Amino acid sequence: MTIKAYGAHASTRPLEPMGITRRIPGEHDVQIAIAYCGVCHSDIHQVRSEWAGTLYPCVPGHEIVGRVTAVGAHVDNHQVGDLVGVGCIVDSCQHCDDCDDGLENYCDHMVGTYNSPTPDAPGHTLGGYSQQIVVHERYVLRIRHPEAQLAAVAPLLCAGITTYSPLRHWKVGPGQKVGVVGIGGLGHMGIKLAHAMGAHVVAFTTSESKREDARALGADEVVVSRNAGEMAAHAKSLDFILNTVAAPHDLDAFVVLLKRDGAMTLVGAPASPHPSPQVMNLIGKRRSIAGSMIGGIPETQEMLDFCAAHGIAADIELIRIDQINDAYERMLKGDVKYRFVIDAATLAG
Amino acid sequence: MTIKAYGAHASTRPLEPMGITRRIPGEHDVQIAIAYCGVCHSDIHQVRSEWAGTLYPCVPGHEIVGRVTAVGAHVDNHQVGDLVGVGCIVDSCQHCDDCDDGLENYCDHMVGTYNSPTPDAPGHTLGGYSQQIVVHERYVLRIRHPEAQLAAVAPLLCAGITTYSPLRHWKVGPGQKVGVVGIGGLGHMGIKLAHAMGAHVVAFTTSESKREDARALGADEVVVSRNAGEMAAHAKSLDFILNTVAAPHDLDAFVVLLKRDGAMTLVGAPASPHPSPQVMNLIGKRRSIAGSMIGGIPETQEMLDFCAAHGIAADIELIRIDQINDAYERMLKGDVKYRFVIDAATLAG
Ligand SMILES: [Zn+2]
Ligand SMILES: [Zn+2]
Ligand SMILES: [Zn+2]
Ligand SMILES: [Zn+2]
Repeated sequence: MTIKAYGAHASTRPLEPMGITRRIPGEHDVQIAIAYCGVCHSDIHQVRSEWAGTLYPCVPGHEIVGRVTAVGAHVDNHQVGDLVGVGCIVDSCQHCDDCDDGLENYCDHMVGTYNSPTPDAPGHTLGGYSQQIVVHERYVLRIRHPEAQLAAVAPLLCAGITTYSPLRHWKVGPGQKVGVVGIGGLGHMGIKLAHAMGAHVVAFTTSESKREDARALGADEVVVSRNAGEMAAHAKSLDFILNTVAAPHDLDAFVVLLKRDGAMTLVGAPASPHPSPQVMNLIGKRRSIAGSMIGGIPETQEMLDFCAAHGIAADIELIRIDQINDAYERMLKGDVKYRFVIDAATLAG
Repeated sequence: MTIKAYGAHASTRPLEPMGITRRIPGEHDVQIAIAYCGVCHSDIHQVRSEWAGTLYPCVPGHEIVGRVTAVGAHVDNHQVGDLVGVGCIVDSCQHCDDCDDGLENYCDHMVGTYNSPTPDAPGHTLGGYSQQIVVHERYVLRIRHPEAQLAAVAPLLCAGITTYSPLRHWKVGPGQKVGVVGIGGLGHMGIKLAHAMGAHVVAFTTSESKREDARALGADEVVVSRNAGEMAAHAKSLDFILNTVAAPHDLDAFVVLLKRDGAMTLVGAPASPHPSPQVMNLIGKRRSIAGSMIGGIPETQEMLDFCAAHGIAADIELIRIDQINDAYERMLKGDVKYRFVIDAATLAG
């Protein structure tokens, strides 16, 4: 059965309509009619082959929400009609230490939702810019938000978990002062989540114009990072910093804002290196610079439930699929508050 | 009362004999007849003003051991005749969070054993290349090793605590595989301590010639880091890495040897930056790069007691004070196994 999708045939080509096939659901598979799919910066990098090894045709999209339309005989936790989500991961080895710990995101054999090897045609996974997807039950998440919020839930599957996981891992909570660097797709979720976890949130932005927006998202304080005086006022005061900025920048300017034993965790990988951070800033206060990638499946379910309980979803702009190429251009200019989400109904034509 | 010391009058001058004064012990002070003083790389940097702000005359030395000769009226924990040590810290504010946590090493007002401001003449602290020192009781450590080991205990006061503190903070113990990078003054202590803590220790060196020595120190495995095949055999396998190398080097070569959630802690600050570490190596396995500086006073006592209980001291070469300038040259060539210690009796004449 051919379904409609949008993808690219080459790194230099725009996205365009294409027909793709999905496998017949196996015993442990869940078939999902996609309702919405968020648009992540990774999608652009992959489609344009800015990362090594893009396989074409490339259908991106890993912030997928929809409704279950069929389940395999041995599927226990999902039923036809359920609202579900699929994030960045559609398979993993299921038996390594990482998988056993529910951290499938760190499994050496993690299969991404797009551009990863699969026995299915065409030999690599195809993502959520499509009408339907078939995924092993382990990687399918239950959505407990009201259906009216479904489009805004989609970005939780990547932007949400990518920020939730480090905030939880580094034990962010009440009584702590937490920095969030960058107010984009990831950062706006980081602010909402850190605020909901009870931390005092300081948002860092390069844009004077984002001050009010950051407060509206839940920041207790907003610092324009170009302003040395504002930065200095927070020296040695932050318990944790979630740094969502992938563009190369001066990490030291933020490291020195950490308390003793504070950590700054990077969730974006720059295309060219950041300036080398000064070791003395780490040594002098036993600080750390760390990285974190997405999150595990149990933790993704926990995040979705946390967001449902706290009424949290992404701030989105809903688009038709034929607006996707323009949306990419706008994202590259930072012109989106804060996530584009594709209405998959518009794929029908 | 003038006592004999060795120090430098300028960055370009060798160390030479000089007379200095020490304060009359106050109510909380301990006066110590110095028996031995270890020679740390920091001593060379400070004497030669390779770090900003060396004050002259400069008397280095912060690995001090000796015997108590007088105590102030309110000193509770030290008595005349006790074997004691003094490390890198001789004062701090005593009321900040760091001091309250017994982490005086991270106090913003930490007073170093040399080159820090003091009301005493000449206005900055003078270190252990001298016959005697007077120190507030809080910063004086009790030594429980046999007196015959006293010279070899001296380096524990800097090299020992600088490696012990991160090994403890990052919870090194049985069942773990721990890397120690560099086999010098710090690294040789790191190997001994990690081994005594029950970890499986992998020593990393650039010198084929240090293989047997590293094993003798307690390393279970030794890797010559220039050998890519040997390095690759440890990929993603280490729980923790203690990196003692201050010279700029490729951190990524070691980061990729860490397991998921592993940390590499740097205890040396390079004069020029390391090549910028690749963020993707941190993100992909939630790894950290951290720093650690010396250790707190309670932790230093714990380390000394741990070493006494395990029969651990430094491997040293005992020198006369008039050999100090030659010793510096040999240290810069890496020609010492693994710490020079000055016999302070040779200051007398
Ligand atoms: Zn994404
Ligand atoms: Zn696995
Ligand atoms: Zn030292
Ligand atoms: Zn203090």
